[in-house]
Amino acid sequence: MLERYFPILQWLRSYNRSTFTSDLIAALIVTIMLIPQSLAYALLAGLPAEVGLYASILPLVAYAIFGTSRTLAVGPVAVVSLMTAAAVGNLALQGTAEYLAAATALAFISGGILVLMGLMRLGILANFLSHPVISGFITASGIIIAASQLKHILGVDASGHNLLDILLALAAGLDQANLPTLLIGVSATAFLFWVRKALKPLLIKFGMGPRLADIVAKAGPVLAVVATTLVTWALGLTEQGVRVVGEVPTGLPGLQLPSFDTDLWQQLFVSALLISIVGFVESVSVAQTLAAKRRQRISPDQELIGLGASNIASATSGGFPVTGGFSRSVVNFDAGAETPAAGAFTAVGIAIATLVLTPLIFFLPKATLAATIIVAVLSLVDLGALKRTWDYSRSDFAAMLATILLTLVEGVELGIIAGVGLSVLLYLYRTSKPHSAVVGRVPGTEHFRNVDRFEVETCTRVLTLRVDESLYFANARYLEDRIYDLVANQPELEHLILMCPAVNLIDASALESLEAINERLKDSGVRFHLSEVKGPVMDKLKHTHFLDDLTGQVFLSQYDAWKALNTCAARTPVTDSA
Amino acid sequence: MLERYFPILQWLRSYNRSTFTSDLIAALIVTIMLIPQSLAYALLAGLPAEVGLYASILPLVAYAIFGTSRTLAVGPVAVVSLMTAAAVGNLALQGTAEYLAAATALAFISGGILVLMGLMRLGILANFLSHPVISGFITASGIIIAASQLKHILGVDASGHNLLDILLALAAGLDQANLPTLLIGVSATAFLFWVRKALKPLLIKFGMGPRLADIVAKAGPVLAVVATTLVTWALGLTEQGVRVVGEVPTGLPGLQLPSFDTDLWQQLFVSALLISIVGFVESVSVAQTLAAKRRQRISPDQELIGLGASNIASATSGGFPVTGGFSRSVVNFDAGAETPAAGAFTAVGIAIATLVLTPLIFFLPKATLAATIIVAVLSLVDLGALKRTWDYSRSDFAAMLATILLTLVEGVELGIIAGVGLSVLLYLYRTSKPHSAVVGRVPGTEHFRNVDRFEVETCTRVLTLRVDESLYFANARYLEDRIYDLVANQPELEHLILMCPAVNLIDASALESLEAINERLKDSGVRFHLSEVKGPVMDKLKHTHFLDDLTGQVFLSQYDAWKALNTCAARTPVTDSA
Repeated sequence: MLERYFPILQWLRSYNRSTFTSDLIAALIVTIMLIPQSLAYALLAGLPAEVGLYASILPLVAYAIFGTSRTLAVGPVAVVSLMTAAAVGNLALQGTAEYLAAATALAFISGGILVLMGLMRLGILANFLSHPVISGFITASGIIIAASQLKHILGVDASGHNLLDILLALAAGLDQANLPTLLIGVSATAFLFWVRKALKPLLIKFGMGPRLADIVAKAGPVLAVVATTLVTWALGLTEQGVRVVGEVPTGLPGLQLPSFDTDLWQQLFVSALLISIVGFVESVSVAQTLAAKRRQRISPDQELIGLGASNIASATSGGFPVTGGFSRSVVNFDAGAETPAAGAFTAVGIAIATLVLTPLIFFLPKATLAATIIVAVLSLVDLGALKRTWDYSRSDFAAMLATILLTLVEGVELGIIAGVGLSVLLYLYRTSKPHSAVVGRVPGTEHFRNVDRFEVETCTRVLTLRVDESLYFANARYLEDRIYDLVANQPELEHLILMCPAVNLIDASALESLEAINERLKDSGVRFHLSEVKGPVMDKLKHTHFLDDLTGQVFLSQYDAWKALNTCAARTPVTDSA
Repeated sequence: MLERYFPILQWLRSYNRSTFTSDLIAALIVTIMLIPQSLAYALLAGLPAEVGLYASILPLVAYAIFGTSRTLAVGPVAVVSLMTAAAVGNLALQGTAEYLAAATALAFISGGILVLMGLMRLGILANFLSHPVISGFITASGIIIAASQLKHILGVDASGHNLLDILLALAAGLDQANLPTLLIGVSATAFLFWVRKALKPLLIKFGMGPRLADIVAKAGPVLAVVATTLVTWALGLTEQGVRVVGEVPTGLPGLQLPSFDTDLWQQLFVSALLISIVGFVESVSVAQTLAAKRRQRISPDQELIGLGASNIASATSGGFPVTGGFSRSVVNFDAGAETPAAGAFTAVGIAIATLVLTPLIFFLPKATLAATIIVAVLSLVDLGALKRTWDYSRSDFAAMLATILLTLVEGVELGIIAGVGLSVLLYLYRTSKPHSAVVGRVPGTEHFRNVDRFEVETCTRVLTLRVDESLYFANARYLEDRIYDLVANQPELEHLILMCPAVNLIDASALESLEAINERLKDSGVRFHLSEVKGPVMDKLKHTHFLDDLTGQVFLSQYDAWKALNTCAARTPVTDSA
């Protein structure tokens, strides 16, 4: 029990020197990668750079205690940072104390929601986000994020939470673009793209092992940070208008409670819920991918608690919403991390950086951070998925396209809500006509098959309809329609058998439809029977009056029903083939 | 084609003198019943009494042309009138010209939505309202309506759109209650209840045929109207404070176009959508019940057009939203109506009443109309359904209770939206764990059964999981979890077979999950196979890369898969029973 809620107890027992060494090396590499990422995502969320570092210390420790993935690396990530900016930007001006307080409260509420969902074992709720919706949402978010960072590359002021606003603001500010900033931004972006595409093959060509080459290539952003900081400092570019990170308070964040202003909480609640679910889905899929590679297991419900604890830890140390990040987790995994202790060691690394390095990043240009963000998020943009989804399923495509367009045009929150709503509606629509077939007996056997596909025996006084899906509110009325049509077209009909071999569930709506069918068939002189009802479904039906009111019988097998009711066979055998 | 959109063409051809007589008699009876109902529901909607009459003329003619039910009687009904009051009450004060204009625009927008849905053949959308939600909504609406009419019985001013507001307003006005009004109201209510419960058996006892007795009993409200109007006039009760219908303009309504104010349309759109759907569901279920009794068919998509045309007709003749009513349709049916012409004749009857009778209803007390409403709606209240639903299904009960409570506390619109949302969520939650079982071979046969229930052959190197439901976004991830768990617990595993005999659909999310499973099993050295994939599902999979990337094979039958992969059998046959 204790181990379930504190997974740390499981791996800490077998912790030894070799695991320690592996974890320490992985932590070192992740730390180097995480420093520029933390700063950049804080910037993306509209927060001071140091807040990104704060969000990369205690949250990692909390996840090491409560998380079930051995290799997930938590911290600020792109999409959640964008959602934070959208949520908080509605309530306060960037740079104000209220803005920071709202971001912190958002992390706290989101953490609370995640922990609560975990305790209620609602990990399964995340499944209601369909893949096309998530994929469309992440693609659109990537585009918005990249566009929003262009202002730092150009050195102009521009803001907005949807693509149009951002592009208009950029166009308006274009004539104030700052040349040195542009030079730094463009060369950093070009360098990072080159690192991502070409550095690894080059290193391998020069004899480096592929895994090491991969890790070195991932350190590209650090190189860009160091180089552009030095250049900016050496050439005094701040006086030429290059905007830099500037003064960052040295020292660890103080512990604090977030704001408990009920108005603020109400305004942030929906955003926090969306951030929780999106962050959880993103994080769990990374964790599952990595765990499967080593035949390990994660527990989605405990992951909710782990991520919730991380967000609460973030909120109590001046940070903002965090979740498991894809690229840094892969680096952690590839660098050989064996336990969540690697995350705790990374936290120590970031804490040291916060104490020691902050004076050194005074001259770090914001354009460099923007370049790292742009290169990172453009890898999230997957427009090819649109084509693949179109080829496979039109309704999934519709949900995906709607999510992308609405996210781009109306912003992240409306985009994801509309995507979820649409995919649910489309699913209900697709299942609203349950698979069903009129069946007849394969001559000489106990098998019954579709009259449209096989040569089978039928009888004009008996009709059997086989349903191949569970019956519930969205398809119950269609079943009624189908049966009334069948009855209206067959005047001699005396018996209608509903064959239910694949019905796993009959909800209250479907039960009422069955009652209505029974009642209406009675009015028109047709008896209504059931056959092959599954055990659990039958158990539930026994709690109702339906079986008492049923004009016909419930047969264990369709063959029993046929034997009992088929009056045609006794007189003139009828063999149909349609 | 023309007949599809104009069902009148179907029945008009075979129209003859006998049908004419039947329809005329039915129309006469329905007219007598409809007059007090029309006046009362206009009052409920917060509109002048004559608007109820206007909404009972042209809409009936429109339905006779476009509707597919032979016996449905359209006009103002209780629940839709309440929803009208809630929608319009937010925008304008009762009694103002804006209020009337908004109600008319509401009918027009709702009509437009219905026609559009009909042309797009979206009749099936109405199914997304589950029975428990509709039943809960109608029960709660009935309670609110009855409570809202108490003010007329007491003769006080009180208004509100949810139960609490109404009761508080009533309590505050209690000391201004008017005794003569109270006497009229209470005796009318008592009389109508007596008519409903006891008159029919009494008439039968005195030798009247049961069908005629039924129809006479349904005329009770007319008796109450005539009696109380006479009393009020004779005793001059208006001077004692009894409120009456008063001056009603004589003459037919003028044709007019509704307001096309875009602001107004935007504000009314959601309400109009809800009214359309609720009205359609109510009307279609009545129409279906009656059609089935005579083995007739209605077309839900054409019904949308019929009801839409009725609402547009109502809007263009100064009326408010209408739909098919339950009790008047039953009377129409029982009185022998054979074609929609009965509806057109009823329209003529109401038109004559509008021309001739309006001066006579000057002294009709509002308390009497309130009494007819109370008696009518209390029959809609079905609290027993709560108990029945609880017994059958806890999650349907939850949706029903939430709908009732939210409708009572927050009003009709939020109530129905929350009910629909909750029932969808609960359904997704219930299906988020697809029915599945690990299966083994029944020795000596080609059959495969659940290892937990049968003595079957299994092999530690081969594992077969049978899924019994379609795979889609809400259950795809659960399948992943289930498979990773199975693989993590069986280290010798080499082959995993997914047996899909009941999978009718694999959506894009489930496809991605299958791809992820394939990828992750590959990483852990297990080959992934499919068996018994249905034809249409296989066709869609062939459009993707999944089959190319699949590490294993697709087997037509599970027995083929077993023969090909079961390496255990060749060496040491293993027979498990768990």
